[in-house]
Amino acid sequence: VDTQTPSIPRGSSRLNAPLLYDEAVNADVLDAIASPRVAVEWLAPMVDQGRWMAKAAVGQPLFIEANIFSDGHEQLVAQVLWHAAETQQWVTLPLQYRGNDLWDATLYPTASGKHRLIVEAWIDEWGTYRNELIKKRDAGLDIALEIREGIQYLQQLVAANSGQARHLKFTRALQGLCERITASSTGEACAQLLDASTATLAATLSPRDFLTRTAQTIEVDREIAAFASWYELFPRSEIAHPASTHGTFDDVIARLPTIHAMGFDVLYFPPIHPIGRTNRKGRNNALRAAPGEPGSPYAIGSSDGGHDAVHPELGGIEAFQRLRSAAQSYGIELALDFAIQCSPDHPWLTEHPEWFRWRPDGSMRYAENPPKRYEDIVSVDFYAEGAKPDLWLALLDVVLFWVKQGVTIFRVDNPHTKPLPFWQWLIATVRNENSDVIFLSEAFTRPAMMYRLAKIGFSQSYTYFTWRNSPKEIREYLTELTTAAPRDFYRPNFFVNTPDINPYFLQTSGRPGFIIRAALAATLSGLWGMYSGFELCESEPVPGKEEYWHSEKYEVKRRDWQAPGNIVDVISRLNQIRRENPALHTHLGVKFHDSGNDQVLYFSKFSPKGGNRLLVAISLDPHRAQEAYLPLPVDALALAAGAEYDVDELMRGQRYRWRDEAHHWYFNPDELPLAIWRINVGDKGAHHG
Amino acid sequence: VDTQTPSIPRGSSRLNAPLLYDEAVNADVLDAIASPRVAVEWLAPMVDQGRWMAKAAVGQPLFIEANIFSDGHEQLVAQVLWHAAETQQWVTLPLQYRGNDLWDATLYPTASGKHRLIVEAWIDEWGTYRNELIKKRDAGLDIALEIREGIQYLQQLVAANSGQARHLKFTRALQGLCERITASSTGEACAQLLDASTATLAATLSPRDFLTRTAQTIEVDREIAAFASWYELFPRSEIAHPASTHGTFDDVIARLPTIHAMGFDVLYFPPIHPIGRTNRKGRNNALRAAPGEPGSPYAIGSSDGGHDAVHPELGGIEAFQRLRSAAQSYGIELALDFAIQCSPDHPWLTEHPEWFRWRPDGSMRYAENPPKRYEDIVSVDFYAEGAKPDLWLALLDVVLFWVKQGVTIFRVDNPHTKPLPFWQWLIATVRNENSDVIFLSEAFTRPAMMYRLAKIGFSQSYTYFTWRNSPKEIREYLTELTTAAPRDFYRPNFFVNTPDINPYFLQTSGRPGFIIRAALAATLSGLWGMYSGFELCESEPVPGKEEYWHSEKYEVKRRDWQAPGNIVDVISRLNQIRRENPALHTHLGVKFHDSGNDQVLYFSKFSPKGGNRLLVAISLDPHRAQEAYLPLPVDALALAAGAEYDVDELMRGQRYRWRDEAHHWYFNPDELPLAIWRINVGDKGAHHG
Repeated sequence: VDTQTPSIPRGSSRLNAPLLYDEAVNADVLDAIASPRVAVEWLAPMVDQGRWMAKAAVGQPLFIEANIFSDGHEQLVAQVLWHAAETQQWVTLPLQYRGNDLWDATLYPTASGKHRLIVEAWIDEWGTYRNELIKKRDAGLDIALEIREGIQYLQQLVAANSGQARHLKFTRALQGLCERITASSTGEACAQLLDASTATLAATLSPRDFLTRTAQTIEVDREIAAFASWYELFPRSEIAHPASTHGTFDDVIARLPTIHAMGFDVLYFPPIHPIGRTNRKGRNNALRAAPGEPGSPYAIGSSDGGHDAVHPELGGIEAFQRLRSAAQSYGIELALDFAIQCSPDHPWLTEHPEWFRWRPDGSMRYAENPPKRYEDIVSVDFYAEGAKPDLWLALLDVVLFWVKQGVTIFRVDNPHTKPLPFWQWLIATVRNENSDVIFLSEAFTRPAMMYRLAKIGFSQSYTYFTWRNSPKEIREYLTELTTAAPRDFYRPNFFVNTPDINPYFLQTSGRPGFIIRAALAATLSGLWGMYSGFELCESEPVPGKEEYWHSEKYEVKRRDWQAPGNIVDVISRLNQIRRENPALHTHLGVKFHDSGNDQVLYFSKFSPKGGNRLLVAISLDPHRAQEAYLPLPVDALALAAGAEYDVDELMRGQRYRWRDEAHHWYFNPDELPLAIWRINVGDKGAHHG
Repeated sequence: VDTQTPSIPRGSSRLNAPLLYDEAVNADVLDAIASPRVAVEWLAPMVDQGRWMAKAAVGQPLFIEANIFSDGHEQLVAQVLWHAAETQQWVTLPLQYRGNDLWDATLYPTASGKHRLIVEAWIDEWGTYRNELIKKRDAGLDIALEIREGIQYLQQLVAANSGQARHLKFTRALQGLCERITASSTGEACAQLLDASTATLAATLSPRDFLTRTAQTIEVDREIAAFASWYELFPRSEIAHPASTHGTFDDVIARLPTIHAMGFDVLYFPPIHPIGRTNRKGRNNALRAAPGEPGSPYAIGSSDGGHDAVHPELGGIEAFQRLRSAAQSYGIELALDFAIQCSPDHPWLTEHPEWFRWRPDGSMRYAENPPKRYEDIVSVDFYAEGAKPDLWLALLDVVLFWVKQGVTIFRVDNPHTKPLPFWQWLIATVRNENSDVIFLSEAFTRPAMMYRLAKIGFSQSYTYFTWRNSPKEIREYLTELTTAAPRDFYRPNFFVNTPDINPYFLQTSGRPGFIIRAALAATLSGLWGMYSGFELCESEPVPGKEEYWHSEKYEVKRRDWQAPGNIVDVISRLNQIRRENPALHTHLGVKFHDSGNDQVLYFSKFSPKGGNRLLVAISLDPHRAQEAYLPLPVDALALAAGAEYDVDELMRGQRYRWRDEAHHWYFNPDELPLAIWRINVGDKGAHHG
């Protein structure tokens, strides 16, 4: 905090008198003289001035941007220094000046884990001199005095570096150069002073006057933390043999080929642990289960074990390991649910009663939202005397147990109802052990809390996407996520549905609505997900509610995966397009454009990686056909105005030759109410701010 | 920086084994358990997480706002603590909960200088218990167990506080209460538990669990730093006696009544110091002055003295003091120009040649922007060896000299061409001596630099207002200033013209344009200013340039202050309306509304001080009449929808009775192309977020 100020004696005035070297003032002025003269503002990424870590992902562009400036008109040099915590190898990259004080650079992290990132800048005295010399030479002014000043400056560099052995080669070269310049004619001296080799020597020996540095730590995740397609299923519903009543992990293995063919690379299960029997919920959330009903997997724990055990009917830990290996062979990673709650039968209730809250009559305090009570679940008490720190360590152990089992992706159930310091500590501790571990926050709550969870360590988060249905709502939400503060720390995972959310939009949209929502999620976010049944356009609700009738949370569901009207082909195509186009590997880099039709969302996505340029148009109207005249956004895609381009429409595999003009498109909900065009440009590595 | 993470031995897993008390993990988990569970986000004001001071002004509302939240559903208590650096007297004010995690409070600072401000919040266990008890009671549930829990909690409070003498009275009262409740019937016990006096006792003895605190320092200025109307004149042009050729400070005294009558309260002069003779500029910026020409007052210093001297023809320091006293009697403060540059005749060049840059041939390095040179001015070199720190201290002395002369407002010329650390040190040092001193930054440069100058200490700043002419441009600029980060640290001073800026708009707008620009500045910003001649609608330009022909910078100007077509009446009325309406004492609190006419700017301003509610509509078209149907923005002004209000149109002094409907208005540029309505509401202190 830069709010300390010096004190000087009241009434002192040194003017017209010998300068009074008042000690306090003098110390302050010397501090001021020594402090950085170059300023950095609006550095991105940067979260709350470095209080929290910004996020990056392996292989994905990390765009560094800042306003860097100083008083006066002198030239600056700016660069970014960057290294992974495990190594001592610094990588240095110049920041490029883009005008109006703006500098930028793009990094590509190569390893996960914490990285130090330093932006530094200083006044480039030689560059400033050089520019002035060029201007004066070009204006035909007498530059004899300027040449003397140039030599003087270079000789100062030689003198200042003369004691340093590592600079000996350079000081000798520069000394020789000065002698040659001194002996030259004005024109030749000027040419030598302006030579690039002189600039290199001057830069090497530069004292880097008025250097300013801004350091921070960046959290780098595996690429799959930023770019992945999630598929959620209840393993118990995967019944390979018609005679069975409960699926197993081995049954899930049988489904892997179709999940892989659809292009999903994360397979996520609700809790796989033993399910409690006390107060077990029945079909459609009935207060009591009928005999034989399986109960909610969120009622974790029974005499068969707790969070580190596997529900016996799923096949035990060995079956889980078989599934994990099989999934791996398809390039699919498993994600587990980390739900910190216990059925009344969880072993912890008897082994560690001190981790729970008890009432004065010795009864258990159930989870409740008065006057409602949830009697199939009890919550642990993080701050109970007996829970500090044993409960915290035990929960850490649960995560580390599954990490040891090869699970490195965790979807965390309702993290906003557990203490923030707990998550901050848990995630940091686990990631310090293994920086490949990824945590998805399932917090559907108020924005400040959702963003805070991302700041304290969650790698990605569920979002409000599910409730953003109009082009205007989507534009506003994506603008917040991609251009405001969350850009640096909050990775959205756009789920189109979950076992808890049967969106109202899909309840009435029919099949076209499922295509629309899948296309939005798959093109707007690097991370998207669906809960199984979505591809079959399932949407039967609890009447009037955003919930599924016959929710799979309370019963086993059998499905016909080839049922007519399914959208498996569209999903497969979307995921394939995602893989092939780096612009779709992140929610960043989106710009919205006017389609002239308030039902048609139109946007461009650009990735500097491979110079990937996409245009996407989606009609959000599942009922009626729409049309639009779509201009070519040449600025957003860094295209030359007035040129022609080869364009591939990727959903249909058609090629067009486009001029720089508006293109008419017809969106038929009964066919395919969207298009994704790739603009093919020779220039692959163009800069894009 | 919250990026340190613990390390634990690789491969450790404590699950299903006795808990391993690994020292590092254990220390970290204990830290986590002890760390704040309540989170604060989006705290305003707050500049770069407290790196710089936010600004406030005496007597003006300081609106504190934050998202404050915790995990789970427990109730929170939040408050703001506040005190001036000179006192130890803390003022505490509760933050009010407004829903969706948002809390706010409004403070009214009473003294200038640095203030500490702390926002703190904790979990309100008793409030949470109370709310649950009410819900259960109202739902008709059995609450016997809840009553026992309540007594248990209160007894814990008694026990926890029993050792503290200062709480003796309260613990005794609470102990007695517990005994009475225990002896009561369920209904009576419930009533006693819910009683407000019980809540007060519980709050007093509360351990304030999971307290979080955010502290920062706020810079409070005198109100005139935030709310003032500036008038700029060249004293040498104020010639009271027709026979004179050069005005004096005593002549300026003769003008004070008219300046006061127009409602200005800051009178600002370009530099009043001796003017150099070497390379003196002539009329219309001619390279050489003709004999008798006065030169630019920005060429500071001659054999008559430097920055601490007064130009002899103005009457010397005694005349300055007479003027200062006279101005004070009119409630007008003087503002001086602090321009750090020297004419070649400035005494410092001979007394302190080591403060300047010299060329290898012994000549002076003039200010230049190659290939242009400014030979009537030389710049000091802040980082010359001989200037560190003597030049810095001498410049401080200049400011302190004028402060001693009773000047506490400084307009700083081109601060962006002097080192940022210099200003940060100078302003802090001066304000530490006298927190009444105000610095206006005359930086017309790139936005990052303008904002940085405000962060490092400038009280207010010139702006881009002069170049924002359309309703859209003005809306966007004001939205940036009032809703984005600058809101907390950057106070705009809307000058309608300056000796350097003869705006293109005014060159062609005629008299209506002058009224429009004055009305915009006077209603949109707490600070506005004009350079004399504006009230006479002067606008003759250097052809094609945004400069005045016969610029007063290079010559003495005589004016007829009663010239026909002047807008003195309009300016006087605007300044009077400003004084009477707190909503106009700041640029904050503005909301823009749709006028349905893209030439008509329509906005509301609200101040919680006095519940002041204004509506302003200004046609920005100086050439044609415009009309608009203006809806009543009931939400923005916290008015009841559907009600009727007495409304005063303040420019014309007319009263209306308005319903909640759109009102037609006709804007005649030849009459008065604006209206300012005050909505009169009984409820004076309504909350307004």
